[in-house]
Amino acid sequence: MKKLKLGMVGGGQGAFIGGVHRYAARLDGRFDLVAGALSSDPERAATSAAELGIERSYSDFNEMAAAESARDDGIDAVAIVTPNHMHAAPAIAFLQAGIHVICDKPLTATAEQAEELAQAAQASDAHFILTHNYTGYPLMRQARQMIADGELGQLRVIQAEYAQDWLTEASDADNKQAAWRTDPKLSGAGAIGDIGTHAFNLLSFVTGLGTQSLMADLHAFVDGRQVDDNAHIMLRMEGGARAMLWASQVAVGNENSLKLRIYGDRGGIEWEQENPNRMTFTRFGQPKQIITRGHDGNAAWTRIPGGHPEGYLEAFATIYSDAADRILGTGGELLPDINAGLDGMWFIRACQQSAQQNSVWIDR
Amino acid sequence: MKKLKLGMVGGGQGAFIGGVHRYAARLDGRFDLVAGALSSDPERAATSAAELGIERSYSDFNEMAAAESARDDGIDAVAIVTPNHMHAAPAIAFLQAGIHVICDKPLTATAEQAEELAQAAQASDAHFILTHNYTGYPLMRQARQMIADGELGQLRVIQAEYAQDWLTEASDADNKQAAWRTDPKLSGAGAIGDIGTHAFNLLSFVTGLGTQSLMADLHAFVDGRQVDDNAHIMLRMEGGARAMLWASQVAVGNENSLKLRIYGDRGGIEWEQENPNRMTFTRFGQPKQIITRGHDGNAAWTRIPGGHPEGYLEAFATIYSDAADRILGTGGELLPDINAGLDGMWFIRACQQSAQQNSVWIDR
Amino acid sequence: MKKLKLGMVGGGQGAFIGGVHRYAARLDGRFDLVAGALSSDPERAATSAAELGIERSYSDFNEMAAAESARDDGIDAVAIVTPNHMHAAPAIAFLQAGIHVICDKPLTATAEQAEELAQAAQASDAHFILTHNYTGYPLMRQARQMIADGELGQLRVIQAEYAQDWLTEASDADNKQAAWRTDPKLSGAGAIGDIGTHAFNLLSFVTGLGTQSLMADLHAFVDGRQVDDNAHIMLRMEGGARAMLWASQVAVGNENSLKLRIYGDRGGIEWEQENPNRMTFTRFGQPKQIITRGHDGNAAWTRIPGGHPEGYLEAFATIYSDAADRILGTGGELLPDINAGLDGMWFIRACQQSAQQNSVWIDR
Amino acid sequence: MKKLKLGMVGGGQGAFIGGVHRYAARLDGRFDLVAGALSSDPERAATSAAELGIERSYSDFNEMAAAESARDDGIDAVAIVTPNHMHAAPAIAFLQAGIHVICDKPLTATAEQAEELAQAAQASDAHFILTHNYTGYPLMRQARQMIADGELGQLRVIQAEYAQDWLTEASDADNKQAAWRTDPKLSGAGAIGDIGTHAFNLLSFVTGLGTQSLMADLHAFVDGRQVDDNAHIMLRMEGGARAMLWASQVAVGNENSLKLRIYGDRGGIEWEQENPNRMTFTRFGQPKQIITRGHDGNAAWTRIPGGHPEGYLEAFATIYSDAADRILGTGGELLPDINAGLDGMWFIRACQQSAQQNSVWIDR
Repeated sequence: MKKLKLGMVGGGQGAFIGGVHRYAARLDGRFDLVAGALSSDPERAATSAAELGIERSYSDFNEMAAAESARDDGIDAVAIVTPNHMHAAPAIAFLQAGIHVICDKPLTATAEQAEELAQAAQASDAHFILTHNYTGYPLMRQARQMIADGELGQLRVIQAEYAQDWLTEASDADNKQAAWRTDPKLSGAGAIGDIGTHAFNLLSFVTGLGTQSLMADLHAFVDGRQVDDNAHIMLRMEGGARAMLWASQVAVGNENSLKLRIYGDRGGIEWEQENPNRMTFTRFGQPKQIITRGHDGNAAWTRIPGGHPEGYLEAFATIYSDAADRILGTGGELLPDINAGLDGMWFIRACQQSAQQNSVWIDR
Repeated sequence: MKKLKLGMVGGGQGAFIGGVHRYAARLDGRFDLVAGALSSDPERAATSAAELGIERSYSDFNEMAAAESARDDGIDAVAIVTPNHMHAAPAIAFLQAGIHVICDKPLTATAEQAEELAQAAQASDAHFILTHNYTGYPLMRQARQMIADGELGQLRVIQAEYAQDWLTEASDADNKQAAWRTDPKLSGAGAIGDIGTHAFNLLSFVTGLGTQSLMADLHAFVDGRQVDDNAHIMLRMEGGARAMLWASQVAVGNENSLKLRIYGDRGGIEWEQENPNRMTFTRFGQPKQIITRGHDGNAAWTRIPGGHPEGYLEAFATIYSDAADRILGTGGELLPDINAGLDGMWFIRACQQSAQQNSVWIDR
Repeated sequence: MKKLKLGMVGGGQGAFIGGVHRYAARLDGRFDLVAGALSSDPERAATSAAELGIERSYSDFNEMAAAESARDDGIDAVAIVTPNHMHAAPAIAFLQAGIHVICDKPLTATAEQAEELAQAAQASDAHFILTHNYTGYPLMRQARQMIADGELGQLRVIQAEYAQDWLTEASDADNKQAAWRTDPKLSGAGAIGDIGTHAFNLLSFVTGLGTQSLMADLHAFVDGRQVDDNAHIMLRMEGGARAMLWASQVAVGNENSLKLRIYGDRGGIEWEQENPNRMTFTRFGQPKQIITRGHDGNAAWTRIPGGHPEGYLEAFATIYSDAADRILGTGGELLPDINAGLDGMWFIRACQQSAQQNSVWIDR
Repeated sequence: MKKLKLGMVGGGQGAFIGGVHRYAARLDGRFDLVAGALSSDPERAATSAAELGIERSYSDFNEMAAAESARDDGIDAVAIVTPNHMHAAPAIAFLQAGIHVICDKPLTATAEQAEELAQAAQASDAHFILTHNYTGYPLMRQARQMIADGELGQLRVIQAEYAQDWLTEASDADNKQAAWRTDPKLSGAGAIGDIGTHAFNLLSFVTGLGTQSLMADLHAFVDGRQVDDNAHIMLRMEGGARAMLWASQVAVGNENSLKLRIYGDRGGIEWEQENPNRMTFTRFGQPKQIITRGHDGNAAWTRIPGGHPEGYLEAFATIYSDAADRILGTGGELLPDINAGLDGMWFIRACQQSAQQNSVWIDR
């Protein structure tokens, strides 16, 4: 199988998500990371690249896009792993250079950036892939298929939640992860953007339902915090299902507790990301079943047999393998794309608008 | 210890909650059930009484209140276990007769009934006790005390839910439990009254917080159903905490899944009624602890050592034992009373008003 | 339904299991406790009886047996809740007086006592019932029926365990529960008698299999303890199944952790007493199912619907209700009897003999 | 960081564990797989190598050892992923060629092979590493350190189990995984070798205790099976702790259920491989704590924050990263080595000897 050449923008020393993307790209052996603009600081970029064994280091993503597209052995795809406000510019640059883009979420920090990026994506022959990595979990893909096959019947109720506690207290100034995420200019939003978009994307992906309207009660519990750290959201879905979505970064005792529960008139499913190798499924009136990873219905997206747990990196790697398939024209149909990104941007904006108007319903 | 004499109104053949009250009254040996108006049908009342070994059977609660209050060995207290629309009249009759009332929830079917009952309760020297039985769970009482003691710090976020699935489909005409619960004239409300009030009462009890306002999205998913079977509710609590409350009777795979999660700026707790002998508690930054029933902090409300599970009937029995203590003047401070009942009636009405106005916030 | 008259021997102030028997006898309303020899100290007996509202107090069980059998309104049955070495004498006295005996386990402290008691039971028309209360759990009864019906196929492997930690340290002299249980003259054995017999009885009850042979490695980890506090046991069952049984009272972090897992060539079940309202069942090659209490297959032995947890007292009460049925000739077929008691005594003795001979196999 | 060159013996098409080793070697980016003798069939070897993008394909491991050791850019280490009876010969060849060996477990199929291999390992300057991969789980390493630090006090009781169900029925002739594992000439043992050695290794690793003696009851439940498929084992450890170990491949409903529970006089820990990101820890007399992956005490062996689950491949990858560190002289102290392999061989042989003599104790 042809191995693809990958570049990276962002992800230098001290970054979290850049390292995750590298694990994900490496696990299945479909990509070689050969070029990077890992930092806007040239020296730091070079040092980071050297540490990671990346051959070609750039200090500027525009320069990188130009140079790589000009090389015969230039990168096939680039991973954008910068803070939210720095997604659009490099993504547009690479799309315009004809290089496939694998971009971290949410799409951008502002609606304007999102709009520009969407236009660039539409204008380009290159693919744009958004790493809503939780859609890579095999049981979430199985759940999606089960719902599409009607095993839950007509959907009625959805409970989605994503709770963390790492922003329970005001952040230290030197916590780089917290700093940009709580700066509205860099992130565009708080919990709703950082984790709420994941929950919203996952429920949309699994149910296959569009959103009709939503309303939100957003709050910042920590003194002086300028973005929401807790969000209570209600949604009305196309087809009549009703949903609740809770996103919090101040829920003490929750590490990365993304949960999804979906109920239809014939069945229900329940799944928790922190123990992702199992999902319960109940047909109405029958005993609850525990469906596990590694079997018919989900084995296509796994590597090892049931009982040998896969986790977050494997699910993320499935996004990367799918990306390889899409680039090579051999698959990748389930990948989140620019539309998923625009949905997420609408979700953020609608939550903010609703909250500013004392929780009125905002239509899609 | 003096054993109290108990009467019962409702709870004849085919009733569910009457039997539960009898188990609860019997378990701790504080009451003898000696009189009853178990049915409005005299023959059925007599047959039911005979089956249960109840000495004095009445066919009319007014007659019963008069007769029992006139006897030297008349009942000390009466349990009202009729459908919601039949709570107020007998409760008022017994209160006026000076007999203590132990009444099932919600308080009544209508606001008018509630108001009359509240006046009767205020005017009477007899106690009025509402069986919000989930407050009898020892770990819920420990949670309440922990919060009062500041172990969670300033409360921020509350997630309450009560999910069942037994009304997933349209009910058979001969399902007596379902019939009155889905008839708005008899119940006054659907899921919000039957189970939502329990969740609301429990979160109020445990947090000690009053409600500032709420908003609701109510829905009946089953064709032709005249009351809500799924309710999505947001609350703003006094002191600034925000809550979500989900009540559903169409969530396939949920039997009686009442859950409460509470987060403050110093700690969080999580509890599930279906496995009620454990609760998790996390101090921010420390490992989650599993607090179990039968130890310091909750042993006052238990019967047997840790590891020997107690359940629903024991928690209900604690309400009855507390009632005995209150009647005898030896305790019962934690019992839900007429005010808890009025809170519940406000909750139902506010949910309905909010829903009718497309989910506006309704102030308390 | 006729209410039966119950007496009690033992169970005065400070006793644990006596109170449990009283809850169990009271819950279903089938017995009235009217007589007792609650202590061998007459004053203490009288005080305890008065506290409990028991009409007739005796200071001597022989006197009680004689007096009660002579009365027209004498007790129908007696509960024996004394320490192990004091089971045989009162049980024999009541059996000889024609009064049904409900006796705590293990049968006796010594083989000689067991033999005498067995003869008395055989010679008497009165019933002898041994409170192996864990057989009262509805899911254990359902498991037994499923196995009898062949749903697990030919049984192969059984894993039984009963772990506690309350004897992790040397007991205080004034811990009455610990004192007699760790005195070999009073208990006859340590963990194997106190809890091992429960695990052995439960596995025998559920599988329906007799034991062919066993071997044991017994140990006392606490300095100076004269009885075993940890037991590792292997069994070979009739029909070829193999079992392991672990009983420990020094396993830190275990409260009352009785677990049973049974595997046949077609299916497997797993159950834990501390969360007794659920059991998993797997048909080979299919998803694991969660079977819950309150449904077809177990509802005959429950009081309230699924999702409303029952616990230890309810399971114990089922033994008492079964006892009432057996006495009245209306049921009680599943009750442990004198043979279960003798099996338990063999189990204890065989473990001790095996351990004394460096874990040789001992045949039944 | 210098990237190491890796070769592989075995692991061609249809093999399970070879793929796992490749994921593990790739995840952390410390190795490049550049050479292989993936099959004894030259064509198949070449095809497999081409599919995997491996540059140099050999049809014979002796040839490979000679050629690679002669090259300037020859492999630094080789992974041996053949069936058990084919471990010793290639391992010896590469050790003699001065190439580090990373070998799958158990060490060999026979004691003679083990002896020869041990001699070769001793005589070589190259490292010999045995992939008892479960020791790579961060919480198992934390448990080991906690025990070494005395947090559990003096160890008393160990419960180890490893249950699967995939050999519940007689295997299809074309199930390659099952075929060699149930052929005594190729595997040397059944469940005790395939999974029992993992459980034994893990309990030894975590407790730090040597074994004094063991006894076993081995059985083959499937007609015609020539190796054990269920093993009940008791152990006496140095220092006085007692252990039970259950290994089964016929326990219906178990996928890969490795569990370890360890109790000392001050505390206890419990861990389950199928949900490996949490471990419970109880200090005697205090609430049970849930210790999670990604925090102080285990973060050194993890990649991503708590709540983002790592799994089997990550734990396996930690063994590979440790191997890189040992080869480079920068760490790897926790790696299982030839002595762990010899311990495992003793374990297998002692189980078989004990079982042949009706479960007598066999001393180490």
